[in-house]
Amino acid sequence: MVQAAVLGYGTVGSGVVEVLETNRESIAKKAGEEIRIKYVLDLKDFPGQPVEKVLVHDYETIVNDPEIQVVVEVMGGVEPAYTFTKRALEAGKCVCTSNKELVARHGLELLELAKEKNVNYMFEASCGGGIPIIRPLTSSLTADEIDEISGILNGTTNYILTEMAEKYADFQEVLKEAQEKGYAERNPEADVEGCDACRKIAILSSLAYGAHVNYENIYTEGITKITVEDMKYAAAMDKSVKLLATSKREGDKFSAMVCPVLVGRDNPLYSVSGVFNAIFVHGNMLGDAMFYGSGAGKLPTASAVVGDVVDCAKHLHENIMPAWSSKELELLDRKEITHRFFVRVKGSASEKLEQAKAVFGDVRLVEAGVTGEFGFVTELMSEGEFEEKAEKLPGMISRIRVRA
Amino acid sequence: MVQAAVLGYGTVGSGVVEVLETNRESIAKKAGEEIRIKYVLDLKDFPGQPVEKVLVHDYETIVNDPEIQVVVEVMGGVEPAYTFTKRALEAGKCVCTSNKELVARHGLELLELAKEKNVNYMFEASCGGGIPIIRPLTSSLTADEIDEISGILNGTTNYILTEMAEKYADFQEVLKEAQEKGYAERNPEADVEGCDACRKIAILSSLAYGAHVNYENIYTEGITKITVEDMKYAAAMDKSVKLLATSKREGDKFSAMVCPVLVGRDNPLYSVSGVFNAIFVHGNMLGDAMFYGSGAGKLPTASAVVGDVVDCAKHLHENIMPAWSSKELELLDRKEITHRFFVRVKGSASEKLEQAKAVFGDVRLVEAGVTGEFGFVTELMSEGEFEEKAEKLPGMISRIRVRA
Repeated sequence: MVQAAVLGYGTVGSGVVEVLETNRESIAKKAGEEIRIKYVLDLKDFPGQPVEKVLVHDYETIVNDPEIQVVVEVMGGVEPAYTFTKRALEAGKCVCTSNKELVARHGLELLELAKEKNVNYMFEASCGGGIPIIRPLTSSLTADEIDEISGILNGTTNYILTEMAEKYADFQEVLKEAQEKGYAERNPEADVEGCDACRKIAILSSLAYGAHVNYENIYTEGITKITVEDMKYAAAMDKSVKLLATSKREGDKFSAMVCPVLVGRDNPLYSVSGVFNAIFVHGNMLGDAMFYGSGAGKLPTASAVVGDVVDCAKHLHENIMPAWSSKELELLDRKEITHRFFVRVKGSASEKLEQAKAVFGDVRLVEAGVTGEFGFVTELMSEGEFEEKAEKLPGMISRIRVRA
Repeated sequence: MVQAAVLGYGTVGSGVVEVLETNRESIAKKAGEEIRIKYVLDLKDFPGQPVEKVLVHDYETIVNDPEIQVVVEVMGGVEPAYTFTKRALEAGKCVCTSNKELVARHGLELLELAKEKNVNYMFEASCGGGIPIIRPLTSSLTADEIDEISGILNGTTNYILTEMAEKYADFQEVLKEAQEKGYAERNPEADVEGCDACRKIAILSSLAYGAHVNYENIYTEGITKITVEDMKYAAAMDKSVKLLATSKREGDKFSAMVCPVLVGRDNPLYSVSGVFNAIFVHGNMLGDAMFYGSGAGKLPTASAVVGDVVDCAKHLHENIMPAWSSKELELLDRKEITHRFFVRVKGSASEKLEQAKAVFGDVRLVEAGVTGEFGFVTELMSEGEFEEKAEKLPGMISRIRVRA
C-alpha cells in the first residue's frame, strides 16, 4: 500500500479524493498497489463530511510521517506550497501538483531537488488540466526536435471568446455570465489578461526545448480588448479568435508570446470551442500533432493529478522526470517576431484603403459590414515594423495578429 | 552506446534510419546514450547507398549478436516478423514495431514473453502512426476507467472521404487519384475495407480495457459503398462521413465496430480531414480527450518507432509495458448495438415518408436536393431492430450510422 497526503481540500483536492475512491480497484491494479489517502491538510474544518476522519491542520504531521510516500499539492499559489513541496522532497517523498504558478516559478529547482533525493516531482495537471501533455512531451516525442507549441491553454478565455463569436455578445456581458456559471473566477484577471496561459506555455516550452523559459519574459496580451466587431470580421474571414500561447524555434533562437490570434479553418485549433483546451505541437520528424481535452474542471484536473500519483507509486525511489537545463532560453525580442496583422481603421475603405496601402504595402480588404470603419490584413512583417507603420496611419482602432 | 538492428528497409525502416541520423544528438541526450544502428536486414541490396555498410541478409547475424539490444521490426505482415520478434525477445533483446497486423494477432503473447525475459515489446507506431496514443493510454490515463475509444485510424480512407466530400467526387475516381499520389496502395483492400482500422481498434481496446479483444470478432464495414449522394446528404445535415473504429463500455459488456459514421460538427472528430488521424477517448473522470496527428507517412511513423527505441534504451532490462489479460473481452452481438440510422429510399418524400414513419416510427426528413429519392434519420434503435424494420420498407438504397 502506498500512503498519500493531499494538501488543500478545494476543488481539485476534493476531486483527487473522489477519483481515488471511484476508481479504487482499477487504480490499484495499474499502480501495482492500493493507494490510500492518510491525510488531507486544510485550514478549514469539514464537519460531518467523510474527509473529517483524515483531516489535519498541521503540515508537520504529514512531513514527519515516514509512512507518507506521496504528497499531492493542490493548494495553488506560491506560498506555502513552495515550502511544503521542498520539505516533502527533502524528506524523500514524491510530490504531484496542479500548481502552474509554482511550477513556472520554481519548477526547475524542485525537479533538481527531486532528482537529488531520487524521488519525483510531477505536474501533468499544471498545463492543460486533464489533457495528457507533459508525459507525451517528455516520454513519447523523444525522437523529435520540437519546433513549435501553440496552445489554447485557458478554458475561461476560450469559453468567453466562443460565446462572443456565437452570440455576438460583448466581452463584459459574457464574462459576467461565465462568472455566474462558475467558468470564470470572481477576480478573473489571471485568466482574461493571459497570465495563466503564460505560465503554462513557459512550463511546456522549458520541457520541450530543454532550457529554462522565464515566464516573466514572455509578452502577454489578454482578451479584454476583443470586441463584437472583431468577431464579425473574424467570421467574414472564416477565422476564429483564440487566445494562443505560442513558442517557436526561429533558427538558433526562440520566440514566445501570449495574445489573441485569428486562426483559420484549416488549423486544428480553429474548432476547439468552449471550455475545451488543446495543445498543438510540431516536431521536425513528426509534423503536426494536437492534444485536446478538458483544460480545467474538478474531475479532469484531478484525473491528471492521480495519473501522476500512480506513476509516483510505480517509481517511489526512482527519478523519472527529466529536468530542463538551468540555462535560460534566449527569446527573440517581441519586435522581431513576425506576423500578419488584421487592422481596423476609422473611415471608409473607399476613402482610406489607398492610404493604408501606401503605409503597409499590399493589404487585403476584409468586408464585414461594420459601419464607420473598415478592416484589412497586412503581409507578414515584424511587430516592430508594424508599430512604426501603424503610427503613420491615422484612425487605427485595433489590430489582431493573424496566424500565418 | 545502445546498438540496434532494423528489420526491413522499406518506407518506415528507412525513416527510422533518417530520424536517428537527423536528431542524433537530441536523441542521445534523451536516451542517456547514443543509439547506433549496427545492422539493417533486407532481402534487397542497396548498391551505392549509405545503408549498404550495415546491410545484412541473414537474421542469424542479428539475433546471435550479443551487442544488439534493440531490434526494430518494421517489415510488416505476420511472418517472418512473428518468428523474428519471438527469437529477439527470447534472446533478451527489446523489440519496437509499427506492425499492427502482428500486434493485433500475437501482441499479448509477445508482451508476455517480453515480461518473462524482462525486456520490452513496444508498438506506439502500430496505432495512429505518429500520434502518441499507446503511452498516454498506458501511462497517463491511469486514473480513469476508459468508457470509449473512437478513432479515425486510417489516413487513406480519411483522405478519400475528405476529397469525396469537398469535390463531390466519386469513390473510384478519388481512390485512383490517391493511388497516384501515394496515399493509397495499389491493392487498397486492407484500407478501404476497414481491416487496417479494425486491427488498430482491437489493439487500443485491449490496452484500454485490459482484456483481449480479438480483431476477428469486430464487425467491420469499409467505405467502398459511400457515394457522392451520401456526401450531399451529409452536407445538408452539417455532418461529415468518417470511417470510425469504435469500442465502448456498455454496462458489463463492450461493443466494437468499424464502419462509416455521420459525425456532427460538435464532435472533435468532425474536422479531422485529409490524411490526418485522430483518436477520441472518453474516461469516467477525465471526460473527453482527443489525440490528433499524422496517422501514417514515413517520418511521423518512424518518429513513433524511434520514441519507443529511446524508451527501450532507457529500460533495457526492465519491463515497463503492461500486458493485457488473456481473458477475452466479451463483445456485444452487433445486432444489439444501438445507433440512429440515416436511410436513403427511392421515390419521393411526399409519397413515401408516411410509409417510412409507419415502419420506423418518428423519423426526421433530410433535404439534400437529390432527385428520385429522399433521406431520413431514425431514432435510436438496435442494429437488429433496424434490419427487421428495413425489410418492410421497399426501395431502400442504403443506410449510414449516425453518431448519437
